[in-house]
Amino acid sequence: MEALKQRILKDGKYLGRGILKVDNFINHQVDPELMDACGAEFARRFADVGATRILTAEISGIAPALMTGRHMNLPVVYARKSKPITMPDTVYLTVAPSHTKGVMTELIVSPEYLSAGERVLIIDDFLASGATILGLVRLAQAAGSQVVGIGTLVEKIFEGGRAALAHLNVPIHSLAVIERMDETGIYFVNDL
Amino acid sequence: MEALKQRILKDGKYLGRGILKVDNFINHQVDPELMDACGAEFARRFADVGATRILTAEISGIAPALMTGRHMNLPVVYARKSKPITMPDTVYLTVAPSHTKGVMTELIVSPEYLSAGERVLIIDDFLASGATILGLVRLAQAAGSQVVGIGTLVEKIFEGGRAALAHLNVPIHSLAVIERMDETGIYFVNDL
Repeated sequence: MEALKQRILKDGKYLGRGILKVDNFINHQVDPELMDACGAEFARRFADVGATRILTAEISGIAPALMTGRHMNLPVVYARKSKPITMPDTVYLTVAPSHTKGVMTELIVSPEYLSAGERVLIIDDFLASGATILGLVRLAQAAGSQVVGIGTLVEKIFEGGRAALAHLNVPIHSLAVIERMDETGIYFVNDL
Repeated sequence: MEALKQRILKDGKYLGRGILKVDNFINHQVDPELMDACGAEFARRFADVGATRILTAEISGIAPALMTGRHMNLPVVYARKSKPITMPDTVYLTVAPSHTKGVMTELIVSPEYLSAGERVLIIDDFLASGATILGLVRLAQAAGSQVVGIGTLVEKIFEGGRAALAHLNVPIHSLAVIERMDETGIYFVNDL
């Protein structure tokens, strides 16, 4: 998606060690218009998967998932990283390594909002190693739901997440796929 | 705002001890269409305050703030509760008591996205004691910004937040103002 790639080139910063800073428009400051355009693009690409619900992980998956839900007219569920007092004591809970924090993170969903028979579209900000998304897949499976697609804003294809998700046999769409980053720049591959 | 009040009556649950469960449509599962309508209503009510930026707190403030930003065509900044590695080491940081967790929470904003001279509209999900919103006000003041309005989805007026914010002399709008909750029901006051 050209608008996202151009924004990454304009306002993204490569910090070294594989880390791309996009907090100008995704992770700390959010550009609502760009997020809405990304949501529209996900809606277009996943129009035929028959999704009944969108699943993401707090915190930075919320904005793209919400806008996708708006365009697909679907409810959005975000997995919590800590259990709020309003959640019942029977939950779906898995553990995934946090890419940028170097710790294990819990992902928790209430059975109230993820049921058997749902067709789940997973939306998140980044696809790197795929660990967070595989955690969301496990939550969906625990609930008896079926994952029908995976969409991310930015994919760092050199970290292997796409390969790690291939066994799921679902469409995977990233709106900006980065082949490599170094001190000379950020380089995209064509849309996958 | 009638649609939000009706949804609270339909899907909200009073859990006792002043706690309203709204995770069917705000805090865990999100209804994008309702959030978008709330964003449109905030945009209408704050059309004349001259805001240049929207400020909220992660996590559950993101959805209403994002939709408000969409309708007002403004960037949204969400205060982080932990410092990501992509953030510089000079930050604005304050501490506020978490209403539902009983602990103190850090609220952190990068000076990259909150500058002197900004006119800040604060949007959040709940107005209870006002402690989180006062934390956001302190961050804005630390940056040399001016708070020009405060909007929340749900206000529990009996917890005193509106009074705690009165000295700011800015418009405060809540889309559903709860006068009291008990085992017999949830009771609203007219819009404030």
